[in-house]
Amino acid sequence: MKKIIIGVMGPGEGATKKDQNNAYQLGKLIAQQGWVLLTGGRNVGVMQSAMAGAKSINGLTVGILPDQDLTKMSSLVDIPIITDLGNARNNLNVLSSDIIVACGIGLGTVSEIALALKNSKKVILLTDHELAIKFFQSLTKAHLFIANFPEEVLKIIKDFNDH
Amino acid sequence: MKKIIIGVMGPGEGATKKDQNNAYQLGKLIAQQGWVLLTGGRNVGVMQSAMAGAKSINGLTVGILPDQDLTKMSSLVDIPIITDLGNARNNLNVLSSDIIVACGIGLGTVSEIALALKNSKKVILLTDHELAIKFFQSLTKAHLFIANFPEEVLKIIKDFNDH
Amino acid sequence: MKKIIIGVMGPGEGATKKDQNNAYQLGKLIAQQGWVLLTGGRNVGVMQSAMAGAKSINGLTVGILPDQDLTKMSSLVDIPIITDLGNARNNLNVLSSDIIVACGIGLGTVSEIALALKNSKKVILLTDHELAIKFFQSLTKAHLFIANFPEEVLKIIKDFNDH
Amino acid sequence: MKKIIIGVMGPGEGATKKDQNNAYQLGKLIAQQGWVLLTGGRNVGVMQSAMAGAKSINGLTVGILPDQDLTKMSSLVDIPIITDLGNARNNLNVLSSDIIVACGIGLGTVSEIALALKNSKKVILLTDHELAIKFFQSLTKAHLFIANFPEEVLKIIKDFNDH
Repeated sequence: MKKIIIGVMGPGEGATKKDQNNAYQLGKLIAQQGWVLLTGGRNVGVMQSAMAGAKSINGLTVGILPDQDLTKMSSLVDIPIITDLGNARNNLNVLSSDIIVACGIGLGTVSEIALALKNSKKVILLTDHELAIKFFQSLTKAHLFIANFPEEVLKIIKDFNDH
Repeated sequence: MKKIIIGVMGPGEGATKKDQNNAYQLGKLIAQQGWVLLTGGRNVGVMQSAMAGAKSINGLTVGILPDQDLTKMSSLVDIPIITDLGNARNNLNVLSSDIIVACGIGLGTVSEIALALKNSKKVILLTDHELAIKFFQSLTKAHLFIANFPEEVLKIIKDFNDH
Repeated sequence: MKKIIIGVMGPGEGATKKDQNNAYQLGKLIAQQGWVLLTGGRNVGVMQSAMAGAKSINGLTVGILPDQDLTKMSSLVDIPIITDLGNARNNLNVLSSDIIVACGIGLGTVSEIALALKNSKKVILLTDHELAIKFFQSLTKAHLFIANFPEEVLKIIKDFNDH
Repeated sequence: MKKIIIGVMGPGEGATKKDQNNAYQLGKLIAQQGWVLLTGGRNVGVMQSAMAGAKSINGLTVGILPDQDLTKMSSLVDIPIITDLGNARNNLNVLSSDIIVACGIGLGTVSEIALALKNSKKVILLTDHELAIKFFQSLTKAHLFIANFPEEVLKIIKDFNDH
């Protein structure tokens, strides 16, 4: 039976310390619920930190890899999906997640937020990038949620399920 | 020999009258240079208007279609590329264009601007959406250019070639 | 840590009774080893039977879906990857599997065998389609293995690991 | 208005001299009709020879490239579509062609023939690989045509248009 899959997206090489700490907490909180964590699967930034959080309590991780270069794959991925699609794989990240959390902002993340909203997927922004929040709110109010810390992300997701 | 290909991206159903007028002018100016116009190939919004401009003076148009539903394809496409990739095709729009012009702002366009900048492609924003301009400028200065009207887009592209 | 993923490919609507029985046994044998079963995720044919076998003993199943039409998705998929890539997703099936088993022959399966061999992936043919066997053997000897029943597939896979 | 697009598929590095001669003739015959030639765009084998034939009389060529490595791109491509999809791009070759000609047989070509037939696209096999012909005929009779030399391919295509 289909498991609940939460996608955590965010910068790779450009992730801040705060993004990485948030990602670790998110990964852990997601795994605590018995949900599957989905990321871009690479061994850097938000992807790596979120998976480290999930694996710290033995959660299940899916990584949607852009290419066949396995030296860039995180060893924390349980189920690697090797797409060889380059950045076109961003659309798969989004479509395969029940809910998308953007943990920090980078160019790849922006493409994922936009593709998610275009597909009417629920997106939770966890960032203090005020301009990003204002910008996406100017494009759509529907499906867009703002959180200030990882526990608030969990609360928002649980509220979805209650309705 | 490889032709110069200019991609004009922009909203479909959500395009404003101004976006469409700009797109028409852009398509015409691109065709006047003997360049190929590349769009998302559908028969609405900026895609349709840009191709109408190009075809008004017999330019060559390439449309990168998201699906196999040919009723949504513009009759102004000379060379349709049927990807059946959904929105993942946005990455192909960007990679196949020498220069990307974002004519107006929508969720799909945002994904294309972000993917283009991530791939170090030159992007010219032709929009009065101030927040969009500020937002993308906050993410990167490199490869990002701002124009206020179609002729200015042409001037920017020609300046690239002179350097 | 990366799990071992075995891809079972085969006809959907066109699967024979024998293909489906083989697929069920394969799915069960794969799950018994603690390996993950990967299929095309739809609720018909070899995909559905293989997943039924795996789930009969509580194995883990990944389905790489071609589109967003969830009415065609099998309820036996634990982790659906929604690609929206149409048949282009066949390449992902192949790249994401450590070993590919072709259980029966159909046009989609032929594309997957060919893509797998082109990517130097090990492919095991479980079919009595003599012409298919001869044809693929005429194209390459490397990476191509022939089995006559599901237990033989397992034996071949285990032999790989011993070398 | 949509141009007629004929896809010529065939081996790259593994093309025989005969395949290449046939491809050259095919490219020329296609261009003589004013049709667009579509290939995989690389500078080897059947792709390169077909484009050389088309360009010998100034035909228009579209190349659907698998990756961003432009050193592998043929200089005979007029309109390169940079997919960065790896072999998943084979499905785009097929969907974007009105008719597919398989000129010789290789693993990539086999995937394209199979994907084309699965999509109910007309496929013309130009090869003396008897086993390949028999194999595909065993899978489907519909949409599959056999030619022995390039002029016969043209005749078959023209017969389609007459009906």
